[in-house]
Amino acid sequence: MHYFVTGAAGFIGSNLCDRLLELGHTVTGFDNFSTGQERFLDKSAGHPNFRTVRGDLYEDRAGLTKAMEGAGFVFHLAANADVRFGTQHPRRDLEQNTIVTWNVLESMRELGIKSIGFSSTGSVYGEPAVHPTPEGAPFPIQTSLYGASKLACEGLLQAYAEGFGFQSYIFRFVSILGERYSHGHVFDFYRQLLKDPARLHILGNGKQRKSYLYIQDCVDAMLTAVSHPVSVGIFNLGTDEYCEVADSAHWIVSRLGLKPSFTYGGGERGWIGDSPFIFLDCNRIRSLGWKPKLTIREAVERTVDYLAANRWLLESR
Amino acid sequence: MHYFVTGAAGFIGSNLCDRLLELGHTVTGFDNFSTGQERFLDKSAGHPNFRTVRGDLYEDRAGLTKAMEGAGFVFHLAANADVRFGTQHPRRDLEQNTIVTWNVLESMRELGIKSIGFSSTGSVYGEPAVHPTPEGAPFPIQTSLYGASKLACEGLLQAYAEGFGFQSYIFRFVSILGERYSHGHVFDFYRQLLKDPARLHILGNGKQRKSYLYIQDCVDAMLTAVSHPVSVGIFNLGTDEYCEVADSAHWIVSRLGLKPSFTYGGGERGWIGDSPFIFLDCNRIRSLGWKPKLTIREAVERTVDYLAANRWLLESR
Repeated sequence: MHYFVTGAAGFIGSNLCDRLLELGHTVTGFDNFSTGQERFLDKSAGHPNFRTVRGDLYEDRAGLTKAMEGAGFVFHLAANADVRFGTQHPRRDLEQNTIVTWNVLESMRELGIKSIGFSSTGSVYGEPAVHPTPEGAPFPIQTSLYGASKLACEGLLQAYAEGFGFQSYIFRFVSILGERYSHGHVFDFYRQLLKDPARLHILGNGKQRKSYLYIQDCVDAMLTAVSHPVSVGIFNLGTDEYCEVADSAHWIVSRLGLKPSFTYGGGERGWIGDSPFIFLDCNRIRSLGWKPKLTIREAVERTVDYLAANRWLLESR
Repeated sequence: MHYFVTGAAGFIGSNLCDRLLELGHTVTGFDNFSTGQERFLDKSAGHPNFRTVRGDLYEDRAGLTKAMEGAGFVFHLAANADVRFGTQHPRRDLEQNTIVTWNVLESMRELGIKSIGFSSTGSVYGEPAVHPTPEGAPFPIQTSLYGASKLACEGLLQAYAEGFGFQSYIFRFVSILGERYSHGHVFDFYRQLLKDPARLHILGNGKQRKSYLYIQDCVDAMLTAVSHPVSVGIFNLGTDEYCEVADSAHWIVSRLGLKPSFTYGGGERGWIGDSPFIFLDCNRIRSLGWKPKLTIREAVERTVDYLAANRWLLESR
């Protein structure tokens, strides 16, 4: 199969490309390298079945269509992935997530490509009333521009399934950890500790309960899902556990052999739109035979080890 | 209060403008007159507290901001309201609904206007599993580009409430009937019967179950809702009954004194994305003291009478 992967130079995209190539597939990786890293594609780049196309999904749909020619399946992972600064850039999620996803769907439609896997987010549940939160939880209320834009994208994928016979796989991720992780609390904490190993400041009261998933488990889950035919397939992807942010902070400093003093920003949420409790019911994807191999703590520790071995990444942003 | 109404020359918009003026408010009506009718504003136009601004919400946000200055509350009713032809114009709902709604919210934010009422739709429930469908029904799957775009708008209103302290009133309408109705099955049936009073063709099998609400009841409900402070207020607006499309067809021909033979397109749905059963649980708005004054049959008959007295409208599209 020839896969087209948007956001191919990103954290999840590059790991997915590597895996698809290992499995013998052909991959076209598309990225504008605005947040993607060329080095994340070092492994894929040498592979005879891999091709990179540099392009912009928002600005140049004709270029996108051209790059997509010949593909049979699209993984659309490119996005503004930062939930935190939405209110400072209120157009960013509209452009980079909603409109870009429409562009991807239209290019697919033009070319007659009808299968898509999409990186949504557990953030579409807002602040859910039910934990663990199943895919059919009560109709949520959005609390961030990021979540709202991902919800908009989900709606587009669903409408294209109904209207144009697409097969739409929608993945509602918890936060993903592991090799090439380049964004999120482990990254932020590590960078703080490099600057001052004696102090760690945590946004919110540290009691936010979050779930995390290891990148290879995430890739396993996506590939498990897309091997089952659907019209619209919505899958929560996470572990069957959660931790407090402060727990995670302790695992991180312990892995680094540090004993900083902790300070807290206070409040139940780390920022506007932060969900104080994310914990997804993943029975649907588990019923297809998938299960995660790493616990949250193991995933956090692998992430710390990866960042320790890749200091360039901490300095790159 | 100074209200800014988008889609002011539309069916719902023009009726709302009339009512707001009757209640002593100041109204700026904004429309591009692409589907809005100048004649719908005949009554408002003479009022000293009314002003029309012709402008385009998609093309000219600066003009929108300028027109909105001085308003304290925005009713954003402008939209592509046609669910049926989404697949023939897949960008229309994205532009006219999603992006335009973002434009309206941003202009409000620039001006410090923080209260908005928005015309969403029962179509955001897709094909719901629960009837009557409450606002907190299970997380739906979209079946039309129209529904998907309205869902995207709802998410934006919710994120602006959380992120910027907006008060967002979201109205999930069933189909609205009554004076200035210019779009939908009564319109289509009437026009068919003008052409050939002996035949009426119905899309689908005629057994689609739908709920309808009379325009003045709809305006009552919106004004009831916005008199109660909220951060995010989501309100289903409909009657506590539904009818089959074929029932409605019989009421229409009977009101017109015709006895046509009926033919059916067949199938459970009239078109792609048509929901075979729309019936909303309206307990939330009813708990605020609102109730509809007209039954569905009465609303259908008033609509027929209105169209009979306004043949120009049937010929205008």
